[in-house]
Amino acid sequence: MMMATLVILRHGESVANRDNIFTGWSDVPLTAKGRQQALAVGQLVAKTGLRFGALHTSMLQRAIVTSNIVLEAIDQLAIPEYKSWRLNERHYGALRGKNKAAVQAEVGERQVKIWRRSFETVPPLLDHVVQDRRYDQFGPHTEPLGESLEMAYDRLMPYWEDQIAPRLLDGHNQLVVAHGSTLRALIKYLDRVPDADISQVEVANGEPIRYDFDDRLRIKRKLIL
Amino acid sequence: MMMATLVILRHGESVANRDNIFTGWSDVPLTAKGRQQALAVGQLVAKTGLRFGALHTSMLQRAIVTSNIVLEAIDQLAIPEYKSWRLNERHYGALRGKNKAAVQAEVGERQVKIWRRSFETVPPLLDHVVQDRRYDQFGPHTEPLGESLEMAYDRLMPYWEDQIAPRLLDGHNQLVVAHGSTLRALIKYLDRVPDADISQVEVANGEPIRYDFDDRLRIKRKLIL
Repeated sequence: MMMATLVILRHGESVANRDNIFTGWSDVPLTAKGRQQALAVGQLVAKTGLRFGALHTSMLQRAIVTSNIVLEAIDQLAIPEYKSWRLNERHYGALRGKNKAAVQAEVGERQVKIWRRSFETVPPLLDHVVQDRRYDQFGPHTEPLGESLEMAYDRLMPYWEDQIAPRLLDGHNQLVVAHGSTLRALIKYLDRVPDADISQVEVANGEPIRYDFDDRLRIKRKLIL
Repeated sequence: MMMATLVILRHGESVANRDNIFTGWSDVPLTAKGRQQALAVGQLVAKTGLRFGALHTSMLQRAIVTSNIVLEAIDQLAIPEYKSWRLNERHYGALRGKNKAAVQAEVGERQVKIWRRSFETVPPLLDHVVQDRRYDQFGPHTEPLGESLEMAYDRLMPYWEDQIAPRLLDGHNQLVVAHGSTLRALIKYLDRVPDADISQVEVANGEPIRYDFDDRLRIKRKLIL
């Protein structure tokens, strides 16, 4: 019987994580600590002995650099590495670039928690699209003005359906290196988490999650590496 | 008029370069100096201000790690990075893993020069294929027992024709990070170097070569960055 494994992990600490800044689609680099975390995570993945058919990541450097460090740590640099905006972090709208504590002082802890953790609440929107040349090729409607987790979920799912699930069904292990919110969205789908409970789901830095599937893509085992 | 630019560059110093070893398809890592060279080369490419549609590299880590360092240096990590065995170094057959000076002491300088620089001479062949799992997916005849430069040229050309040339014709700049021999093969094609003259062509570490093409893929300018 064909079975395959999915490993999902979050990028290492970025300068925005370090400085407690809302980030989203802003393309901030990893810190030195973030590179160390990526290496440590790679060593955890290496210990599984899994061989992957492909790696999937976002178009943001904190995820891509983490991916490259992980692939080197597991000695699988030669596998295909696919980069998609559908795996980008949830777009934080007008919150991007703002300090979380400062925003909290302004609007209160409860509002910030809702923006950060609820499923359907949309953050304050930008009033115009940030024109980033890397997304031009995907047409004028790719870059959002801001996204709820639900909106991020909706644009993530076609990638799961078209690029990840078929490869797992073919029996090839897949590695996904993404962001806190897109991984929460993916976990919501895989674990069938109700909308109301998604605020409880956190994806820690440095803790890759492993899903073993059967040949119908039913979860046989889930564990944190 | 649509025009596009190709930049080709060789990976940084590998441990086999450092130790004067015949390498080919052996998957040896970069040295610390090799990583520095990759960064310096990336900075040269960054100065051109060119934006690339894609990067093409081999399935060998010395080229992939160089690619990743270069993409980070030019702040274009988000572009597609394609890895193909067709861009792998020429396969050195039974010479792989041998010290060049020791081989020269054994067979003479002239013979080593012919093996290293001629177009059609095949090196001593392996007596069996080195089974490397990363090439399994391409079928049983991908891994050679050894290759002349001509054989490497012949398996490189479909990649040029199918993956690189069409993108240049579409007006997208392309970046190729490969190996001494595969770049010599590509230069032989682009510059129409006669077989007898290819022994004169060297591709130095750390010197990216830029080709500017017109809309019929004729070379308008060639220079070393």
